[in-house]
Amino acid sequence: MQTIGISAKTTSEDALAFAARVTADLRGRGYNVCFDYGTADRLGDRGKCVAKSDLGKHSELLITFGGDGTLLSVARHAPKDVPILGVNMGTLGFLTEVRVEDFPEVMERVLAGDFESEKRVTFDVEVRGPGRDHRKYRVLNDATINKSALARIIEMRVTVGGQFVSSFRADGLIIATPTGSTAYNLSAGGPIIYATMGAVVLTPICPHMLSNRPIVLPDDLEIEIGIATPNQEIFLTLDGQEGLPIAQNDKVCINRSPNPVTLVRTSKTSYFDVLRTKLKWGEG
Amino acid sequence: MQTIGISAKTTSEDALAFAARVTADLRGRGYNVCFDYGTADRLGDRGKCVAKSDLGKHSELLITFGGDGTLLSVARHAPKDVPILGVNMGTLGFLTEVRVEDFPEVMERVLAGDFESEKRVTFDVEVRGPGRDHRKYRVLNDATINKSALARIIEMRVTVGGQFVSSFRADGLIIATPTGSTAYNLSAGGPIIYATMGAVVLTPICPHMLSNRPIVLPDDLEIEIGIATPNQEIFLTLDGQEGLPIAQNDKVCINRSPNPVTLVRTSKTSYFDVLRTKLKWGEG
Amino acid sequence: MQTIGISAKTTSEDALAFAARVTADLRGRGYNVCFDYGTADRLGDRGKCVAKSDLGKHSELLITFGGDGTLLSVARHAPKDVPILGVNMGTLGFLTEVRVEDFPEVMERVLAGDFESEKRVTFDVEVRGPGRDHRKYRVLNDATINKSALARIIEMRVTVGGQFVSSFRADGLIIATPTGSTAYNLSAGGPIIYATMGAVVLTPICPHMLSNRPIVLPDDLEIEIGIATPNQEIFLTLDGQEGLPIAQNDKVCINRSPNPVTLVRTSKTSYFDVLRTKLKWGEG
Amino acid sequence: MQTIGISAKTTSEDALAFAARVTADLRGRGYNVCFDYGTADRLGDRGKCVAKSDLGKHSELLITFGGDGTLLSVARHAPKDVPILGVNMGTLGFLTEVRVEDFPEVMERVLAGDFESEKRVTFDVEVRGPGRDHRKYRVLNDATINKSALARIIEMRVTVGGQFVSSFRADGLIIATPTGSTAYNLSAGGPIIYATMGAVVLTPICPHMLSNRPIVLPDDLEIEIGIATPNQEIFLTLDGQEGLPIAQNDKVCINRSPNPVTLVRTSKTSYFDVLRTKLKWGEG
Repeated sequence: MQTIGISAKTTSEDALAFAARVTADLRGRGYNVCFDYGTADRLGDRGKCVAKSDLGKHSELLITFGGDGTLLSVARHAPKDVPILGVNMGTLGFLTEVRVEDFPEVMERVLAGDFESEKRVTFDVEVRGPGRDHRKYRVLNDATINKSALARIIEMRVTVGGQFVSSFRADGLIIATPTGSTAYNLSAGGPIIYATMGAVVLTPICPHMLSNRPIVLPDDLEIEIGIATPNQEIFLTLDGQEGLPIAQNDKVCINRSPNPVTLVRTSKTSYFDVLRTKLKWGEG
Repeated sequence: MQTIGISAKTTSEDALAFAARVTADLRGRGYNVCFDYGTADRLGDRGKCVAKSDLGKHSELLITFGGDGTLLSVARHAPKDVPILGVNMGTLGFLTEVRVEDFPEVMERVLAGDFESEKRVTFDVEVRGPGRDHRKYRVLNDATINKSALARIIEMRVTVGGQFVSSFRADGLIIATPTGSTAYNLSAGGPIIYATMGAVVLTPICPHMLSNRPIVLPDDLEIEIGIATPNQEIFLTLDGQEGLPIAQNDKVCINRSPNPVTLVRTSKTSYFDVLRTKLKWGEG
Repeated sequence: MQTIGISAKTTSEDALAFAARVTADLRGRGYNVCFDYGTADRLGDRGKCVAKSDLGKHSELLITFGGDGTLLSVARHAPKDVPILGVNMGTLGFLTEVRVEDFPEVMERVLAGDFESEKRVTFDVEVRGPGRDHRKYRVLNDATINKSALARIIEMRVTVGGQFVSSFRADGLIIATPTGSTAYNLSAGGPIIYATMGAVVLTPICPHMLSNRPIVLPDDLEIEIGIATPNQEIFLTLDGQEGLPIAQNDKVCINRSPNPVTLVRTSKTSYFDVLRTKLKWGEG
Repeated sequence: MQTIGISAKTTSEDALAFAARVTADLRGRGYNVCFDYGTADRLGDRGKCVAKSDLGKHSELLITFGGDGTLLSVARHAPKDVPILGVNMGTLGFLTEVRVEDFPEVMERVLAGDFESEKRVTFDVEVRGPGRDHRKYRVLNDATINKSALARIIEMRVTVGGQFVSSFRADGLIIATPTGSTAYNLSAGGPIIYATMGAVVLTPICPHMLSNRPIVLPDDLEIEIGIATPNQEIFLTLDGQEGLPIAQNDKVCINRSPNPVTLVRTSKTSYFDVLRTKLKWGEG
């Protein structure tokens, strides 16, 4: 490892301070550090910095300081062979399970190459329709189609692997990866999906038909969602972080990305340990 | 009865044609007819017409032709002593249970004063906050607080009868009357509430905490919802038909209106008959 | 107050020990104490004791030491004018909000008559059918109809106030009071109902039809549930504590009892405070 | 194909009559027919008959006449290379999509070997514990752990692939295959799982913790459920058809069976067509 990419939650003084300390330490040991613009700016650091979406391309390891959102914003652009280590600043995250106090020990092992990692499925999302370019957006958590607050119920025509599934009339539709199944999907009534499974779940948001239950699908079928409702404000949101307007006759096409995300796994906690803690299963 | 208010779904040729026929018949029998502007315009009728929100004030009876939305748009402005008769144009509605083929017989009885009616609770909704006037909006179905599609989760601080209930973190919150319990509330996971009961239900939309279940309350306690989230686009929607932006430090205050809505009841179907048909309980 | 009824959770050494101490104190101050048989037996106390179902009739005040179950087992037999004070032995209950450390102060106020109380609706449950006596069972939480583990789905024909509601095909049906809405009803997907409201909720357990949602009703309508399935083991359970087999052609009839239960209210916590704590709304 | 196994719903005169006709036709064309005992008995047929659990072993093709239950009772014992054709007698089933009127044409194609089939995952279920034999039960739909109607909430300690998941306190737990995801699992709030996917879903029944949501897992991990509750009547049910009592310290162990079930697929309807029809998505 020569270059280590670092991104911190720019609204957290704690995250920034800790990122600065780690940076100094890494540089002292001969590593190059690369920031995203926002982190560099907040740290007043004059070292190398690039756009968040390029951070993974310039690094052999990515470390984020903050919550799941901070990790997501970097991870969904990262190449598949760059491991990502998420450090939380106090509250355990689904993706950021390393605590500040455990970080030094974890980092030693990661720098020594003595760590396990796991691949998480990501999806490529493309909007096809009149006047659309062919830009693909990659998501680690979910792609969400959502009506605006003042719009009426929207109708979405869904096909999977070329087969017509149904026309869903709902406030929206969440297409979540296993990683994203514990995020927005859970609030909308979707199931938890084992993190490293090759699956995707379609969960309608406030569906008109009560029998429109979440559907779990294998991750190797193309999902196509046609917007069938005219004259309504509708948005596609990517990992809850980026959004673009869509409209009637647009088709949202979702395919498994050839690039999974590689998360550093520490041995201390299992996937189920995190679930139990985050969802408070142990109590009450 | 001297004047009968008539409103038709302006996008339905069937509803307009039937409204025109009924109008001609009523005038032939010596009744005055008053339209809302939209209906008059679409019918090309030069008779008396007023704003939808005033239609009830100029009528001793209101008849709507269309779906539940058509009735709602008139009913939520109607005085409490003006009965409302909803005629559906093919599909049974929760509020519009009279079919075209049954209409002549029903109308005779209504004109003869030989009918039953039932009162439905409505709520007055007011936004209190910096720079707000004291306008009250009346709802028959629901008041909904909703984040915009691109906004993040919002936090709403709820008090009931002056007692703090909880801070809900969710996409939004539905405050539904018994009448509205079978509308949006049902899609969001709320219960059915017996139509003529003195109750209200608070149903969070996609809540972050899975234990934030719908709460049914008596209808005589003031409900106050404070917006605790800054810098997000948030809207208050009234009966799904009218919306206004709200923001941090605004308080949405909801009280039972002194004016219930009076619906004409035909003896043919009970409330549960309508539920069974609309929710397809009888089948499968 | 001359006689104070005392019941403790007989499997809890803490509850028994504390009950013994309180008993000694009360007797020292000139009060009579009456136990239920189980508590007397476990305490080895030779004082007055009666059946749990009679404890309320021999007391002017009831105090329970244990959890909600302990209180329920006494309260559902208590006359309406006997206040009940529930002391929890460590874990806050929905019904037993007084902590051991707060008990002395609360008791002083109760003995001085300086306390508030609230009435909770109870229901009388009767099974009508061939060979049935007319015994009525009173419930404070819920009456539940449940198939046995090996039985198939059962069909229950429900009428409310003489009107046919629907035939529910499900594992069972919960009829819960507002007090019971936060118990089994919540696990089965039912809503929370404000504790002192005049309401009842019907919640099907694992219904075959996904549109068979919970229904909230006013508490003054008779609910009748006819068992339409032959040859299956089916049980009626009362407050989760008492059960009896029922069969095809039996009718379970539920009416508001003329005897509500009177709970001592301490000023320290509101109903919503208890909800927030029990359902962990404050966290996460 | 030499021998064709035939099983009919023994309580349906239509199914029996149609089975008799098909049998005569097949014999006339030189095929051997083998019945299960119940069908042979009801038909009064003196031909070859065996136990249901052996029917697949004596046949090169299985045909069932009745509903999903009839097919399930035969299929879960069938070897993996024996295709199964389910004929429904009026109501479309999830597993029995061939209608009587389409049967002749479908049968011709099947006899000619001109048909597609699909493999459905099954699971082997074994109860390990004191005094238990090592009998394995195979399920095509689900294994369900359920408390008896009068028992209290039970606690089940779940591990997956050797990792502790959680202790679930609930009325029970459903472990459903993709095929069974649209059966009991759906009523308990579980998701739909694409039928041919390598997955399994754990769905708690009326869980005490509202955050105990269904969990979807890959089908190649051993699921072990330890009963942690003493002195309660608890049952394990297999495909809703066979049940056995289990108790504290028993462990229910579930592994993917090496024998999937082979269903004949007719080209007329897709999996999603069946879902839409059965769940009434197309309407309302």
